[in-house]
Formats: sequence, C-alpha cells, structure tokens
Amino acid sequence: MTEQELFVKMALNAWDGQMKRAHGAFGNLSDEDLYTEIAPGKNRAIYLLGHMAAVHDLMLPLLRLGDRLYPSLDEVFIDQPDKAVQTLPSPAELREYWTNVNNVLNEKLKSLSAEEWFQRHNSVSEEDFVKEPHRNRLNVLMSRTNHLAYHLGQLVLVKKG
Amino acid sequence: MTEQELFVKMALNAWDGQMKRAHGAFGNLSDEDLYTEIAPGKNRAIYLLGHMAAVHDLMLPLLRLGDRLYPSLDEVFIDQPDKAVQTLPSPAELREYWTNVNNVLNEKLKSLSAEEWFQRHNSVSEEDFVKEPHRNRLNVLMSRTNHLAYHLGQLVLVKKG
Repeated sequence: MTEQELFVKMALNAWDGQMKRAHGAFGNLSDEDLYTEIAPGKNRAIYLLGHMAAVHDLMLPLLRLGDRLYPSLDEVFIDQPDKAVQTLPSPAELREYWTNVNNVLNEKLKSLSAEEWFQRHNSVSEEDFVKEPHRNRLNVLMSRTNHLAYHLGQLVLVKKG
Repeated sequence: MTEQELFVKMALNAWDGQMKRAHGAFGNLSDEDLYTEIAPGKNRAIYLLGHMAAVHDLMLPLLRLGDRLYPSLDEVFIDQPDKAVQTLPSPAELREYWTNVNNVLNEKLKSLSAEEWFQRHNSVSEEDFVKEPHRNRLNVLMSRTNHLAYHLGQLVLVKKG
C-alpha cells in the first residue's frame, strides 16, 4: 500500500463510520419522529435529513464526479433555515433522496484512485491548486465527514415518540 | 512538501478548525449557561466541557506524547454519565483544565514530524501495526476531530441566559 493509498483508506474509513451511524440514526426515527425538534426552537430532524441529502448531493459536482441528482433541495434545505418554508417534501421522499444520493456518491467515491483523490476539487482553480495542494478532493471528504459528525451529535438528541 | 507532509497538514487544519470553534462555543457560554442541558434531559454543557477535556487529556498517552495532566477527570466525565456524580469541579476549574490540556496537546502535536504521525498509536501493538498501518497517530487525530465536531453540534444548541 502506498502512502497515498493509506491516507485515502483512513479518510474513507472515517467517512464510512459516520455514514453508518447517520443511516442508523435516521432509520431509528419514525416518520412522525422526524418532525421533532432536536432541541426546543431548533431544527427538526426532517430538516437535517433534507439538509444532509442536499450537502451530499452538492459533493458530486464539488468532487467533479458528475451532475447533481436533486438540486431543488437547496432552496429549502440550504438557502433557508428550518420552518421558513411551509411545505417540505414528505419523509418518504426525503428518505429516498438521502438513500439515492449516498448510494450514487459512495459508488463514485470508491471508484477514485488514490491519485485522483489528491487532485483538486471544483472550487479551486488549477492555478491556485498549484500553490494550495491541500485543496484536493480528499480534503472535501474530510470536511464533510466532520459536517456529518456535527449533525449526528444533534440527531441523537431527538426523542423517539 | 512531501505527500506525508500534505496529509498531516490537511488533518491538522481540520483539527485546528474544529478546536477554534469549540473554544468559541465554550467561551460564548457564561458559567451559569454551562449548567444548561443541551436538550431536555440530555447532557449539560459543563459535562461536555469536562468530557472533552478528559478525552483530549487521554490523547497524550494514546499518541505516546507523555503523561496525562488530569486523569481524575475520567471517573466523572467518562466512566459516568452526566448527573450521576453530585459534585463537579467548578466552571473555572474545568475551563482551566480544558485550556491547559489543549495548550499542552497542541504544542506536542505541532512538534511531531510527518513521519512520526504515521507511526503507531499506543493501543496497537507493534505486531498488529505491521498488518494494520492505518492505526497510526494521525488516525487518532482524525477520529478525535470527528468527536469534537459531534459534541460541537450539541454545544451550539445551548440557550444563553
């Protein structure tokens, strides 16, 4: 195993671990539970489900892995806070989006070679990347793993009905 | 910059970013706020402060960087859940432990060479490490960065008085 391969394995292991916990946490909540706030006056679990589906969907173009599946999620789950939009997609729809996005994303993540992981992500120009080689695809994955952990810490607070 | 140095920089950047946010979140809470639960019936912020100080203190021996500063924290903040122990250290004491632990830890983290980051951590034997080279110091850092993000997601829910 090369050094690059070793580091990619470490970062993918961390991602997989958090993803597994996130699937478990959402799977543990009933459709009704999803409408519960994580804490009084804070985001509802259903908002986090849509938010995380949107953020993971955004990883596809950011990692230069293809087009997005559900760009319409952003308007509700990224540009606006929870409760600003009256009508959300249903729990069944959002669970489907979440599952599909992660299936497509994970398949593409596993197909990248170690070398490809260290290529630039889409928000940095080729010129800047020469000076800032840490702005690579793997750095996006590590950042999104932390994002996942952050919201996971909130999801586990939801009281089951 | 060698490949190893690049990985280390990426992982340390992620750690520094989460640490900065955690310092900000605790600094934002008054001593009184610390006694607030992150959500009804859940951990209080003061427990998270002690818990994170203990977990970071544990990183010193785990990373083979020296002895712990505050091993007595474990009994209250790792072995027991919040509210199981009646008398906690004061907010001032815990803030001091948290600051000291992270100062000592960060100084030692910055002193490691890229090569040293890829050496084994203390919970894996030299024999096993040959077969499982991902169980290195840097993997501990990445894991603790996610742990930090997880509890940070909870800390930001605390209502300020």
